[in-house]
Amino acid sequence: MDFQGIIEEIYATVKQSENKGTVASYIPELSKVNPEKFGICLLDINQKSYFAGDAEESFSIQSISKVLTLVQALSIVGEDLWKRVGVEPSGDPFNFLSLLELEKGIPRNPLINAGALVVCDILVSHLKNPKEDFLHFVRALANDKTIDYDKKVALSEKRTGFRNAAAANLLKSFGNIHNDVDAVLDFYFHQCSLAMSCKQLTKTFFLFANHGQCTQLHKFLQPSQAKRINAIMLSCGFYDEAGEFSFKVGLPGKSGVGGGIVAIHPDKYCIATWSPGLNHKGNSSLGMQVLEQFTTKTGLSIF
Amino acid sequence: MDFQGIIEEIYATVKQSENKGTVASYIPELSKVNPEKFGICLLDINQKSYFAGDAEESFSIQSISKVLTLVQALSIVGEDLWKRVGVEPSGDPFNFLSLLELEKGIPRNPLINAGALVVCDILVSHLKNPKEDFLHFVRALANDKTIDYDKKVALSEKRTGFRNAAAANLLKSFGNIHNDVDAVLDFYFHQCSLAMSCKQLTKTFFLFANHGQCTQLHKFLQPSQAKRINAIMLSCGFYDEAGEFSFKVGLPGKSGVGGGIVAIHPDKYCIATWSPGLNHKGNSSLGMQVLEQFTTKTGLSIF
Amino acid sequence: MDFQGIIEEIYATVKQSENKGTVASYIPELSKVNPEKFGICLLDINQKSYFAGDAEESFSIQSISKVLTLVQALSIVGEDLWKRVGVEPSGDPFNFLSLLELEKGIPRNPLINAGALVVCDILVSHLKNPKEDFLHFVRALANDKTIDYDKKVALSEKRTGFRNAAAANLLKSFGNIHNDVDAVLDFYFHQCSLAMSCKQLTKTFFLFANHGQCTQLHKFLQPSQAKRINAIMLSCGFYDEAGEFSFKVGLPGKSGVGGGIVAIHPDKYCIATWSPGLNHKGNSSLGMQVLEQFTTKTGLSIF
Amino acid sequence: MDFQGIIEEIYATVKQSENKGTVASYIPELSKVNPEKFGICLLDINQKSYFAGDAEESFSIQSISKVLTLVQALSIVGEDLWKRVGVEPSGDPFNFLSLLELEKGIPRNPLINAGALVVCDILVSHLKNPKEDFLHFVRALANDKTIDYDKKVALSEKRTGFRNAAAANLLKSFGNIHNDVDAVLDFYFHQCSLAMSCKQLTKTFFLFANHGQCTQLHKFLQPSQAKRINAIMLSCGFYDEAGEFSFKVGLPGKSGVGGGIVAIHPDKYCIATWSPGLNHKGNSSLGMQVLEQFTTKTGLSIF
Repeated sequence: MDFQGIIEEIYATVKQSENKGTVASYIPELSKVNPEKFGICLLDINQKSYFAGDAEESFSIQSISKVLTLVQALSIVGEDLWKRVGVEPSGDPFNFLSLLELEKGIPRNPLINAGALVVCDILVSHLKNPKEDFLHFVRALANDKTIDYDKKVALSEKRTGFRNAAAANLLKSFGNIHNDVDAVLDFYFHQCSLAMSCKQLTKTFFLFANHGQCTQLHKFLQPSQAKRINAIMLSCGFYDEAGEFSFKVGLPGKSGVGGGIVAIHPDKYCIATWSPGLNHKGNSSLGMQVLEQFTTKTGLSIF
Repeated sequence: MDFQGIIEEIYATVKQSENKGTVASYIPELSKVNPEKFGICLLDINQKSYFAGDAEESFSIQSISKVLTLVQALSIVGEDLWKRVGVEPSGDPFNFLSLLELEKGIPRNPLINAGALVVCDILVSHLKNPKEDFLHFVRALANDKTIDYDKKVALSEKRTGFRNAAAANLLKSFGNIHNDVDAVLDFYFHQCSLAMSCKQLTKTFFLFANHGQCTQLHKFLQPSQAKRINAIMLSCGFYDEAGEFSFKVGLPGKSGVGGGIVAIHPDKYCIATWSPGLNHKGNSSLGMQVLEQFTTKTGLSIF
Repeated sequence: MDFQGIIEEIYATVKQSENKGTVASYIPELSKVNPEKFGICLLDINQKSYFAGDAEESFSIQSISKVLTLVQALSIVGEDLWKRVGVEPSGDPFNFLSLLELEKGIPRNPLINAGALVVCDILVSHLKNPKEDFLHFVRALANDKTIDYDKKVALSEKRTGFRNAAAANLLKSFGNIHNDVDAVLDFYFHQCSLAMSCKQLTKTFFLFANHGQCTQLHKFLQPSQAKRINAIMLSCGFYDEAGEFSFKVGLPGKSGVGGGIVAIHPDKYCIATWSPGLNHKGNSSLGMQVLEQFTTKTGLSIF
Repeated sequence: MDFQGIIEEIYATVKQSENKGTVASYIPELSKVNPEKFGICLLDINQKSYFAGDAEESFSIQSISKVLTLVQALSIVGEDLWKRVGVEPSGDPFNFLSLLELEKGIPRNPLINAGALVVCDILVSHLKNPKEDFLHFVRALANDKTIDYDKKVALSEKRTGFRNAAAANLLKSFGNIHNDVDAVLDFYFHQCSLAMSCKQLTKTFFLFANHGQCTQLHKFLQPSQAKRINAIMLSCGFYDEAGEFSFKVGLPGKSGVGGGIVAIHPDKYCIATWSPGLNHKGNSSLGMQVLEQFTTKTGLSIF
């Protein structure tokens, strides 16, 4: 299939879209991004890369990083992780703390903030130098030593992250945070500040298309674990638009408020997009259009 | 792949399981079923059938029927249907009416009771003789004229279906039921009382493995519609165990409190199981074990 | 104290108010009422009556009637009633069914719709001819045989009372309605359709100012029961404006969507107002102003 | 009325009760209290004092202090306070953060934790030395310079107060905390650690029985403000047992998890009790019994 041609065509079409969305403003540092940025990159199962636009420029991957802490935590504690976090979709953006209360401090899944905080807590418990060690892990996944945190973004989030602080304290009150709340939050805000390009994202997430093996074919996850994280990304990767994404695109994936999206077709490819404008559900507006057009044009969805 | 051998082996193993679950008791007529019944049937994409146990005995398919009313409603009103029902998972079994209130009478998806009631209302509006016409539609899907309602079950549900009556009245109060509440409930209880065997279920659901075409290759749905219903089944087909099912099994599917489950691997196969004992989430206990073992042994999940 | 002078003065002032509210439209028959109607009546502990405006014209008392079914039910089953209904405020108008679900079919208090439905169910169980017998009971309380149902209003509510039908069915599903749902709803809609004037209301509610004895000094309730219903009216008598009413007026009382309000100062007086325009919380706009001014001017609140 | 005789008789009876409840354990320092402690004190409107048992021994007044910060905040900012906190009962102990989310950071009332945190924030904004200034204010109310914080209790709460930290951060995220979260929490934990005896409590709360004037007849509140706080105490002073307390006792009041309760009959008296064992709703078990018996025996309730 002519991936390069298709990607260039979709890039050209979607760039004209009038539904460009709005850049996230609640994290001051993120609101400074140029809203015109737009990139696409696809890495096929044979490790051949195709791209268009600003595919090699790095941006704040934000919540996409939750998948990466999950991979590292699973690689350390294995299936015990699921005693502290569920695998069900959550649905509700408007009362994210409510569910946590009703369900006694067990977050619905590891891709909502509360769940990611528990995953961070696990890493803080097991890593000697959590921030450094996690960064090395991500660099190994991507086979790229240039990947780094954006300290300004981390600091900006820390200063305004009161809802995350509320969630962390609530989790602590239920005994589902074992470490100091501030230490967990500090690690969490750093994780979210990871900066990558679309190209780096496809390399980092290649293991989900490849049964747990990264581009260098090192096995980071068991095939069954990779399969399961794909299932969670499909059900829970797009906030309360997960069903909509699954319905229209039909791929496991994860989005971030920085405007990035990464999606996977097992055994076939990994694709990443970046455009900072978000739709009203908090997902990249152009990115959603790209992926919907891509699976429609190629017929390559999992359904 | 030796489907027959694999199914027989799984049948023998799972039959020994001690987690047989509990037969649903809230519908009196259903509680009379023999709890030892157990059947499996697989229909591959080439229409070859494989089975084990009570695969040819019919049972009450209950909520599995919600997918079939959805197919007929989509075939009549098309995408307008999504103005009245969402495509997001709901999650909460314990407060199913709460969400409906908060979200002003738009059910989360067509596979929860409230959503299915809206779909029934659409059919009551458009079909001349709703119960007869829907039955003919199902028989055509399955290419089997022996499929019928179980009137005793329909009556038994009507007598005890107060939660559904509550949901229907709440929907009506929001203007999302257009017909008489009792007429919609009567159709709904009949739909749920459809009786089929595992073998009939695989034929009826074959179109989801086959891009919208049934076994006779008549096209009931556009490929994109079949793909989308698969996505909804994956996200929403197993009550609040949808995430768990997606995580462990990795297939779109739908369960019913009669103990039936049907699941689909697009382009590959359709599989149905029946065992009346339910786990605490309301899904067939042995059925869940069969499907988990099947995708694990064959590696044939969508993730 | 010059009650007549104070009432006339308040009547004149409040009649000029620009916040006249909006007549309830969800019950078609109620929306036909003349919005200019406005009456006040006060009955002091010595049974002397003072009034102004349309105090002798009857209107639909609606939810005010919930206190009267409660009185009759308590007089029949005594404190056992509290096994099926709570005494706590509910607060939430926007998700009235949610609480009922979470609390497993035990309504928060007898003055919300769900609680009143349970009280009606008790009367349907114990009265030979519920509608007739309850009407006689109310006439005896008021010592007035002209009081009657407004059949048109009852019918109008029945045709549009889907939320109440939802609540009744949900209660039935939890086993907290013992009779046929339709029979209970029919009685409930009749109860709500009771028509009275402000003058009749003060006579009917006189027993709450007088330790359970009505104007003819017949004892309908034990003093402790009258005291307790006063406590419930204070906490729960004004939907989600109960706290506000208690805060600003400081009297037990009950409002109805027909625009009536009745309030009580134990050992001192009973006061009723009527003006059909409702504020955004569903209570009579002018009525609230009258009562706030009355307790402020006279200093006669319970706090 | 022979208050002394009645109080001694009730003391003797209730001391024999087998429903002594359980001492609060979630604040480690509080769990060390002798569970046998039991005292009652009544101060009548003529400032005559009557008591029994451990009425002069000081204990941690905990949430009772919320009324006192409210008095000081009202005395500084007046009715503007109600822009940031409501006056409606909240009802739900099990999901206290949910309501806060749904209602966008405006706590239901100033006597729940979230509301008290907002009141504390107001004092932190307006007082030069919040902890010292508030202490002086309380000492002036009680005309007693020996009243003080219990620093050990304050520290113990700080170490375990994760739910309060969650609430404070959630309020901050909605912009309803203006100061540093930690500063507000520090003040809040100190306020809760105030230690008083029953005798001191009756003197401190005397102003609510006396139209806003304390025992030295200094006017701390307008009569209308005192009346309104009484209304709030009645509706909201006993967690989700407020309705029950109003129903059985019929007095405005406030309880604390230290086992103290204070209640007021305007124009008549102020009464305080202390017994550390709590019932399952979090209110002092013996204290509730004392007050129920007291209003039943004397007939002195507000209803």
